[in-house]
Amino acid sequence: MAKGISEIDMKILKLLSKNARLTYKELAEMLGTTRQRVSRRMDRLEKSGIVRKYTVIPDYEALGYSHLVLGITLGPSVDIDEVIEKLRQIEEVKVIERALGTHNLVLHIIGPKDMRELEKIISRISKNNHGLEKMDITFVTEIVKFETL
Amino acid sequence: MAKGISEIDMKILKLLSKNARLTYKELAEMLGTTRQRVSRRMDRLEKSGIVRKYTVIPDYEALGYSHLVLGITLGPSVDIDEVIEKLRQIEEVKVIERALGTHNLVLHIIGPKDMRELEKIISRISKNNHGLEKMDITFVTEIVKFETL
Repeated sequence: MAKGISEIDMKILKLLSKNARLTYKELAEMLGTTRQRVSRRMDRLEKSGIVRKYTVIPDYEALGYSHLVLGITLGPSVDIDEVIEKLRQIEEVKVIERALGTHNLVLHIIGPKDMRELEKIISRISKNNHGLEKMDITFVTEIVKFETL
Repeated sequence: MAKGISEIDMKILKLLSKNARLTYKELAEMLGTTRQRVSRRMDRLEKSGIVRKYTVIPDYEALGYSHLVLGITLGPSVDIDEVIEKLRQIEEVKVIERALGTHNLVLHIIGPKDMRELEKIISRISKNNHGLEKMDITFVTEIVKFETL
């Protein structure tokens, strides 16, 4: 465990990763502690940035969206911050992760199902950014398991 | 918009994607509707499976974890369901997504920072599964943007 993170913090985070809508009261009961203590710990976790976000994972298929993961490899002299700034402007790019390894950037696109429309989004990504050496395109067809902790 | 999903459903989901802990009351105020209506719509979204999960996105770095994305390409005769069943047994494999395109499977590993420990986890994935043709390994170093809708 990282310094500054107590055992109760980790337990709270694990419970929230399964259901982020648990109330302070429910969390307190599950952990055998008080509502006040849970509220105080969560406040701290949120303010320190350890909690980035509470969010919903939807079934994109049921909503009529397609979900793509783009793994991007940049050329050696490319300014990654500049690329990221341009990617932020594209509404359908919902997730941007800096990375090391096979890819330098991992993007998630939540877009229309229509392939021609998707192609336009992808070409907006590649056209605006010189120095994209390689782009691996993967369509997520089903989220089999999704846990964050 | 997919059939059966109303405009209010999409508005609720978008607000929850920004903050899944908003109360019925807060959502109702933001949308100019009643608490009862929000509660009814959310109940339906949850029961129908359109909401897969409410979860927390933590700062893995601050928690002392490493976050890896593995893009796996399977050989043509491999039974993907069998592979998935084996992957479900590995605790550190937190996300399993079936996919089409460059990769047939996208996995997220939340593991220790120690590289030798990580190597053990990755070799457990590859050893147990014959027919992994290729595995692209990417370390996520920073989540720059994370939205789900």
